[in-house]
Amino acid sequence: MKERARRRTRRGGRTSASPPASPESLINRLPLVTVLSDDGVQMIHQASMRLLKEHGVLVLDYPPARKTFSDHGAIVEDELVRIDEDTLMHFVSQAPENFTQLGRNPANNIVIGGDHMVFAPVYGPPFVSDLDGGRRLATLADFENFVRLGYMCQHMHHSGGTLVEPNDVDVRERHLDMLLAHITFSDKAFMGSVTHADNARDTVTLARILFGVDAIASNPAVIALINASSPLRFDDRMLGALEVYARARQAVIITPFIIAGAMSPTSVAATLAQQNAEALFGICYAQMLNPGTPCVYGSFLANIDMKSGAPCFGTAENALALYATSQMARHYGLPYRSGGNLTAARIPGAQAGYESAATMLPTVQAGTNFVLHAAGWLEGGLISSYEKFVLDAEICGILARMVDGISLSDEDFAWDAFEEVGPGNHFLGSQHTMRHYTTAFYQHSVFSMDNYEQWEEKGSPDSYRLANLRWKQVLKEYQKPKLDEAVSKEMQEFVDQRRAELRDRKERTEWKHS
Amino acid sequence: MKERARRRTRRGGRTSASPPASPESLINRLPLVTVLSDDGVQMIHQASMRLLKEHGVLVLDYPPARKTFSDHGAIVEDELVRIDEDTLMHFVSQAPENFTQLGRNPANNIVIGGDHMVFAPVYGPPFVSDLDGGRRLATLADFENFVRLGYMCQHMHHSGGTLVEPNDVDVRERHLDMLLAHITFSDKAFMGSVTHADNARDTVTLARILFGVDAIASNPAVIALINASSPLRFDDRMLGALEVYARARQAVIITPFIIAGAMSPTSVAATLAQQNAEALFGICYAQMLNPGTPCVYGSFLANIDMKSGAPCFGTAENALALYATSQMARHYGLPYRSGGNLTAARIPGAQAGYESAATMLPTVQAGTNFVLHAAGWLEGGLISSYEKFVLDAEICGILARMVDGISLSDEDFAWDAFEEVGPGNHFLGSQHTMRHYTTAFYQHSVFSMDNYEQWEEKGSPDSYRLANLRWKQVLKEYQKPKLDEAVSKEMQEFVDQRRAELRDRKERTEWKHS
Repeated sequence: MKERARRRTRRGGRTSASPPASPESLINRLPLVTVLSDDGVQMIHQASMRLLKEHGVLVLDYPPARKTFSDHGAIVEDELVRIDEDTLMHFVSQAPENFTQLGRNPANNIVIGGDHMVFAPVYGPPFVSDLDGGRRLATLADFENFVRLGYMCQHMHHSGGTLVEPNDVDVRERHLDMLLAHITFSDKAFMGSVTHADNARDTVTLARILFGVDAIASNPAVIALINASSPLRFDDRMLGALEVYARARQAVIITPFIIAGAMSPTSVAATLAQQNAEALFGICYAQMLNPGTPCVYGSFLANIDMKSGAPCFGTAENALALYATSQMARHYGLPYRSGGNLTAARIPGAQAGYESAATMLPTVQAGTNFVLHAAGWLEGGLISSYEKFVLDAEICGILARMVDGISLSDEDFAWDAFEEVGPGNHFLGSQHTMRHYTTAFYQHSVFSMDNYEQWEEKGSPDSYRLANLRWKQVLKEYQKPKLDEAVSKEMQEFVDQRRAELRDRKERTEWKHS
Repeated sequence: MKERARRRTRRGGRTSASPPASPESLINRLPLVTVLSDDGVQMIHQASMRLLKEHGVLVLDYPPARKTFSDHGAIVEDELVRIDEDTLMHFVSQAPENFTQLGRNPANNIVIGGDHMVFAPVYGPPFVSDLDGGRRLATLADFENFVRLGYMCQHMHHSGGTLVEPNDVDVRERHLDMLLAHITFSDKAFMGSVTHADNARDTVTLARILFGVDAIASNPAVIALINASSPLRFDDRMLGALEVYARARQAVIITPFIIAGAMSPTSVAATLAQQNAEALFGICYAQMLNPGTPCVYGSFLANIDMKSGAPCFGTAENALALYATSQMARHYGLPYRSGGNLTAARIPGAQAGYESAATMLPTVQAGTNFVLHAAGWLEGGLISSYEKFVLDAEICGILARMVDGISLSDEDFAWDAFEEVGPGNHFLGSQHTMRHYTTAFYQHSVFSMDNYEQWEEKGSPDSYRLANLRWKQVLKEYQKPKLDEAVSKEMQEFVDQRRAELRDRKERTEWKHS
């Protein structure tokens, strides 16, 4: 622990002219938190098997998937696919327990699964916000800024995916701009497009140019977020993308997207059973397509406010479900995705802080392997917030120390300090403190420990304002990582060609409909 | 779980004219979180025994305590008391595993120990703050307001102690005013004065008038916070009060007060060993005085910011130590006090929210039995904040649901809902939802789930402002609980008599020094 901590601090101390250090892979050394007994895990499992066998899953607008299920032993009637436990588990068991996703910088390769933990930024918001301008539709410039923030952040292990929706770019071409931004403004691993099978194919093509065809056949260079359209339903868009990635042996996160009370019953038990059925159904499909495809058991679970219908985050029900789901994923030997710094709040105030921590602590204590939304999330995922990003990163840094656990070496018991100081005196100047003060305890980057008087002298800034100063400073210090020119040129040529095709197709479609 | 939740909601729905419902005792049904192996627990224990035997504890300005230790087998040289494991553990083992503290309203009696959890408000701040006036020295009027807030709050099980320092009252008489405020403005259990042995005696006298001499001999009506003056030091003020309470068989919380890096070495292991030595030393003393005295193993542990020297809260080191200390307390079969909604922040913004939740979740997940500072704490304990009180209470309410765990009955699996709704449809109108919507999920009282547009229409209020409206509403709804007139008169007479004695003594002292 000590050596890890020391390295972390040294790297943190580099000047702004140096590239940011590769984030250190997190290994969770803590006992994992559980909320279900072994019997409880079995009950959830059996309930899911009953749902899949008796109720089934709707597979909408995608006949190839229904054929795949039918060919592999499922019962298909119209759009409904039913599957029994033996068939399902035969395929689910073929998914690997862990895998390595490649980063453009090999120092940023990450292991997903086991006791590894990966933090990735917010995914999906149409809006951005900052203290200066409030909420507004996001643009490609915002997207690039969030890539830069993630690249500069020592506690983000992954560049993420749709950091914001670049609304100023034609929706057909957006995936190309987002991929180029991840690849050129960062050298961390990134996520693939899931908006259409064609976009997934573009993602794979770019990854092949960047990493090489053979490299990404051995280890995935792309991870993609495949959502179920809960309850018990998948659609063509997601299944089409899933098929492309599975055939290319890239990684997929199968995530039921559930606001309990609306997309599932109001009870946690039923919600867990439904979620488990949906996640396993998607993973089963990936294994039917290409056995051994890296799959992550995903969970995105909030609950509805029964008064207003709004989604709630940071609640007890959500935390309990998060812990229980981690037990289910481990039960099947699958990597687990969940959690993040989630909140329903619209600005980064007290509610945002409470709800985020009340989600992120359970996320880490559950041993979640892939943590999407670890930084930047506001308003139930509608906003990527610049300030929230750096505030969340602080919590990620704190939790990165927590997973190291408590070291119990002779040096940690500080016998010489007790000898030197004696009862009643302080330890500030002791030799033991001198040996450890540079690495003892987490050093905050945006939270302030100032007392009231110091704080008033600085103009009584709240966390929102301090975070505003912080992200601007980080962007100012940002320098683009190097990228091989030949590779860059080849990617650009491919993107130019695809843009031309997409624009041509669009014009023809518009002509047809005019 | 369902029945508990239902009752909670019904009570919450009472009109403002009714007295607030007695808070439901919390039973923690979750598996407790651990961070130490059994060997680790033994290592901390052995290190503590070594500290107590080889280094000893300073007992300052209180010869009776040194004599007690000496009479019971400890080695006393000047002010230093050393004690071996057998002697220490002989006495520690006589403390009960749990006990019941009486509340003036018997419905508010509380069990301390085992799987019970008690939330009590902030303790000790000299300042109060609110959104309207910022930070200022606290007064008795503030003290009374915080008693009212605690009385009205369904998630506070205890009225607490020094909610704020009533600075406008002479320091010699303050304890009388604080006790009267707890007794008359609330009917929940309260804490005793520890500022002087005489004040502890006054506390016991008032408790005897209020509850009866026999009643408080069987079950404590007072619980008192006895701090060690760390490292490895106790003083006359605390030990004098401890002696009064132990002889009257009232409960004491023995709490080392440690900012690690200053009052203990920088490492968690050494800090845990020192803390364990101090806590057991105090508990041992209570048992030497009166075997069977109800004792709580207390922990107040923060770490220093090595750059500025300021105390930090919500850190990884603090959370790890909190979990580890709970394991130590359980190892000795003792009730455990720690945690709360702690933060270094000066206003209830994002930092306060994060740090508070990052302390309070571990507090609950560690199975802490007595949670002081569960509501109202700001600026490292220098401020009792009106707004923070109601924001913290929200988190307490959320956690009160979390400890119920996940119910796995047939009804919880909602089979009829899946049958009724079928794949692809929402559950909002299902019979199962209709049966459960009034109790499904926690209902927020101050956090807002409004979307951005609704929130803008309301004037874009942050949590600070919403909390400001909330506490004012609660104080408006407050009604004093009934108190027997004869008892009230007897207490008032005692207080008047003590005030006269204290003023008389003060005048004579002033005359002597003039």
